[in-house]
Amino acid sequence: MTLPSSPADLLDAARAGSRAALARLLSLAESDREAEVVKAVHPASGNAHVIGFTGAPGAGKSTLVDAVITLLRSRDVEVGVLAVDPSSPFSGGAILGDRVRMQEHALDSGVFIRSMASRGALGGLSLAAPSAIRVLDATGKPCVLVETVGVGQVEVEIVENADTVVVVVNPGWGDAIQAAKAGLMEIADVFVVNKADRPGADQAVSDLEAMLEMAAPVDWTPPVVRAVAVTGEGVEDLWTAIESHRSWLAEEGRLERRRREHLVEELRNIVVARIDADVRLRCGGAEFDRLVDAVLARDIDPHSAAEAMLDRFRQGAPGGA
Amino acid sequence: MTLPSSPADLLDAARAGSRAALARLLSLAESDREAEVVKAVHPASGNAHVIGFTGAPGAGKSTLVDAVITLLRSRDVEVGVLAVDPSSPFSGGAILGDRVRMQEHALDSGVFIRSMASRGALGGLSLAAPSAIRVLDATGKPCVLVETVGVGQVEVEIVENADTVVVVVNPGWGDAIQAAKAGLMEIADVFVVNKADRPGADQAVSDLEAMLEMAAPVDWTPPVVRAVAVTGEGVEDLWTAIESHRSWLAEEGRLERRRREHLVEELRNIVVARIDADVRLRCGGAEFDRLVDAVLARDIDPHSAAEAMLDRFRQGAPGGA
Repeated sequence: MTLPSSPADLLDAARAGSRAALARLLSLAESDREAEVVKAVHPASGNAHVIGFTGAPGAGKSTLVDAVITLLRSRDVEVGVLAVDPSSPFSGGAILGDRVRMQEHALDSGVFIRSMASRGALGGLSLAAPSAIRVLDATGKPCVLVETVGVGQVEVEIVENADTVVVVVNPGWGDAIQAAKAGLMEIADVFVVNKADRPGADQAVSDLEAMLEMAAPVDWTPPVVRAVAVTGEGVEDLWTAIESHRSWLAEEGRLERRRREHLVEELRNIVVARIDADVRLRCGGAEFDRLVDAVLARDIDPHSAAEAMLDRFRQGAPGGA
Repeated sequence: MTLPSSPADLLDAARAGSRAALARLLSLAESDREAEVVKAVHPASGNAHVIGFTGAPGAGKSTLVDAVITLLRSRDVEVGVLAVDPSSPFSGGAILGDRVRMQEHALDSGVFIRSMASRGALGGLSLAAPSAIRVLDATGKPCVLVETVGVGQVEVEIVENADTVVVVVNPGWGDAIQAAKAGLMEIADVFVVNKADRPGADQAVSDLEAMLEMAAPVDWTPPVVRAVAVTGEGVEDLWTAIESHRSWLAEEGRLERRRREHLVEELRNIVVARIDADVRLRCGGAEFDRLVDAVLARDIDPHSAAEAMLDRFRQGAPGGA
């Protein structure tokens, strides 16, 4: 079967159930045809509940996402998953291994899982991830789950843009504190203490609750749920907590406000990325090389060199290539 | 004692041993006077060996950095430390707790430790960190250690810009694999299996060595060192490995080439950040708000809205505020 080539036709095919069309649409969204894809899918987007999962590497996010998929499928809810993985020539196999259970869902037509590399994505992950989420959303999936490996600045920003943010921690001294150190307390809508059958689960729950109490009063206090993702224990409670957050968001225009804030940030990112690309293209000419050499020779300092480049841009002159 | 106000005078005072002057200089480097500071310190910089430490949260990076400081001080080597911490109203206490041992070195005039928040740094961490490193370098510290919490994209980039990158992993199933997943295999110059008195240390070492063997042949194969940072065991071996990397870098112009690559990236970042600031300022007016509303109403798509903003910038028109 030949796939249509236009994003609009691909979207129609994907909505009609073609997994190949959906896969192709997501690939286009990561290519230089991203803008075309976004244009095609945007009108049909905005209906999915987007749920982000974050937490330290090894906290069991993939297993938990897998358990949530199983729960949703048992209720006949369709689900799209975006798994943001750092790409590494060393880790291809390891990541696949991790995703084996998730891959089992690949036989289920109600689940679509997409991995996205966190390095080398065109224009950066902070642009590519919202576009991929929009595609999954536009194909009519009522739930889109987003999972990132790692808790760096960019990765946290991606998850932060979900409607509901789930932060996964483990029992054991200091794990809640590590989450706090990674800046995850502020963005959590729901906490899960995963691997809650291990010693220290009660402590982790009370650490989190104590930290939440110390925080400034907020409209929504994140519930703290216990789960054992590998057995599925607690996953229903997690889903109940996620749904109660969604219900709260639906009141008093909160969801619209939250999405507006995210969109403002996304638009700024797109504008800046376009200008970035232009600058980086121009930062490659002979004049740029001469400035780099001058900085290395300590004839000028980096900020003065950058200022000289900016002057050239403002005059609209080419980069001196 | 009154501190001088100009960065040049502060640098002189810092080089003469004033810790207050150095602290002030670093604060200025994180303020809107960053360019002034870089201008003042750049000519005196470039002599320090900059060593970056990264690894998953909880791997024991702070303790290891502390042990390296102790070793260097026993050899009478002065050392500057930049600890990049995510700032969080929840975690102030926790981070301080973690840094208690490091703080003991604060009584030692041969050690200067600076924490930098990974959120909210002016112009972002990827700009602020190189400036802070340059300040520590210019004051004559022969060694500058850089440690980041977390292994996100931005955090890894900061550590990547060191002369020598140390990746810290722990024994236990999967830790080496987690490091690979976080994209750390490619950037490591030296591996440390910390907490090597725990079960699984041999396995972690052989996992790493196997992954390194699978990799494409490179000029430098990262040594894998075992350490127990809390007792200081293995820290001499770690330092020997770091020094052998430094010796290798010193040959055939490798250090110059590496630093040139880092500088190219830094200059691009500065140029882009200047333009970013301008764009973000302009992305605040009434016209921008109207575009956001149009996207939310699905009258236009995000990329077309961004294009409309870019057209306004290209015409040099104000943002419509």
